[in-house]
Amino acid sequence: MSRVPENSPESSPEQAPAAAAIEQPRARLLELAGGAAGSRLARAIDFLIEIDRLKSVLRRTLLADGSRRENSAEHSWHLCLFALVLAEHSGAEIDLTRVLKMLLVHDIVEVDAGDTFCYDEDALSGKDERERRAALRIFGLLPDDVGLELRLLWEEFEQRTTPEARFANAVDRLQPMLHNLLTRGHSWREHGVGKHQVLERNAPIDDGAPDLWRFAEAFLDEAEEAGWFGE
Amino acid sequence: MSRVPENSPESSPEQAPAAAAIEQPRARLLELAGGAAGSRLARAIDFLIEIDRLKSVLRRTLLADGSRRENSAEHSWHLCLFALVLAEHSGAEIDLTRVLKMLLVHDIVEVDAGDTFCYDEDALSGKDERERRAALRIFGLLPDDVGLELRLLWEEFEQRTTPEARFANAVDRLQPMLHNLLTRGHSWREHGVGKHQVLERNAPIDDGAPDLWRFAEAFLDEAEEAGWFGE
Repeated sequence: MSRVPENSPESSPEQAPAAAAIEQPRARLLELAGGAAGSRLARAIDFLIEIDRLKSVLRRTLLADGSRRENSAEHSWHLCLFALVLAEHSGAEIDLTRVLKMLLVHDIVEVDAGDTFCYDEDALSGKDERERRAALRIFGLLPDDVGLELRLLWEEFEQRTTPEARFANAVDRLQPMLHNLLTRGHSWREHGVGKHQVLERNAPIDDGAPDLWRFAEAFLDEAEEAGWFGE
Repeated sequence: MSRVPENSPESSPEQAPAAAAIEQPRARLLELAGGAAGSRLARAIDFLIEIDRLKSVLRRTLLADGSRRENSAEHSWHLCLFALVLAEHSGAEIDLTRVLKMLLVHDIVEVDAGDTFCYDEDALSGKDERERRAALRIFGLLPDDVGLELRLLWEEFEQRTTPEARFANAVDRLQPMLHNLLTRGHSWREHGVGKHQVLERNAPIDDGAPDLWRFAEAFLDEAEEAGWFGE
């Protein structure tokens, strides 16, 4: 390699401005994005770097093989595949594109707000406000029109008033139940979650995908027989 | 808790058939799915459990914060967000739904074939055949029509002959470059990858998203100044 080593006197800030500038790689990337195609690109890149943190937000559920806890980014990918291959079990006509977009963004607020365990009553109390603030900040990084579209999709998912939101919520509830079944009730046992709580939490599956709720009820009965619930 | 403990004599296989059956949770889930809504559901569930393994396939690239290697499932989620917020930089009109579907499935073959480092010439030699066999097996778990659709999307991604495939490939190349920049060239330095290799590997970004390629060329020049390439 012919270039001068970084710690040589020749690479002082005056003589190697690029190397000096890149001491802050993220800031420099955003400057370059602004130069290359206007600030819309810079704002999109900033958002894309920010949401990388979702890969470090851990859920209570284990991977299907029990090897470790699942993170919210890979969970979101998995849910999109659930939606793709289970769409025919939706209880209503759905626009699959909107379902996919919703599932891709539905957990992004956790970058600020963290994952709230759905059976933790105390943590659930401040969840809405924490997540609302997070949505404003994180989607606010994007160009206004793009950010607004994604924030509205997140709100739609939360409100469950459209067929798409109901189906997206159904797969978001089905997937962790399957992982719990495959790991013999790991997170239910670990956190003392009883069958009545699981039924109450997951009953909205019936609104979005009735077939899938009948399937879930059957395996929850067997999980009870096997002693896989807490308390 | 009122039920009988699992290791009690009362819970022998004869008296607790459900608990006995669920000794193999995956097999039992598929039986229940067959009973609940026909074998199409069972095949979809089998696929969804199988692809969970993508969360354990590690790539060479680190997370943006450098904390650990990225896995192919969370990578796929991230790419979908790249596509969503960078679609306006595509070089041609694209059907975003097809792009998202392609990105969701593009790495699934790695469940069998592993992640092949794009700068490892030896590993690349048998890659196509390994991945073709993987696609037949894994997408073959699904109901035939669904499996065929996803396998064709994977092939389209690989062949890069449509605007959607070219754009999807562009973001698949841009994302690891950004992570390398943010981690000061970590995987390039670790594996002795030179700038000419990075330029050659990533030039197809220009076919899918010319704006993004100009942005990439600018930051690759600065990475070179900073000494972030190998060899």
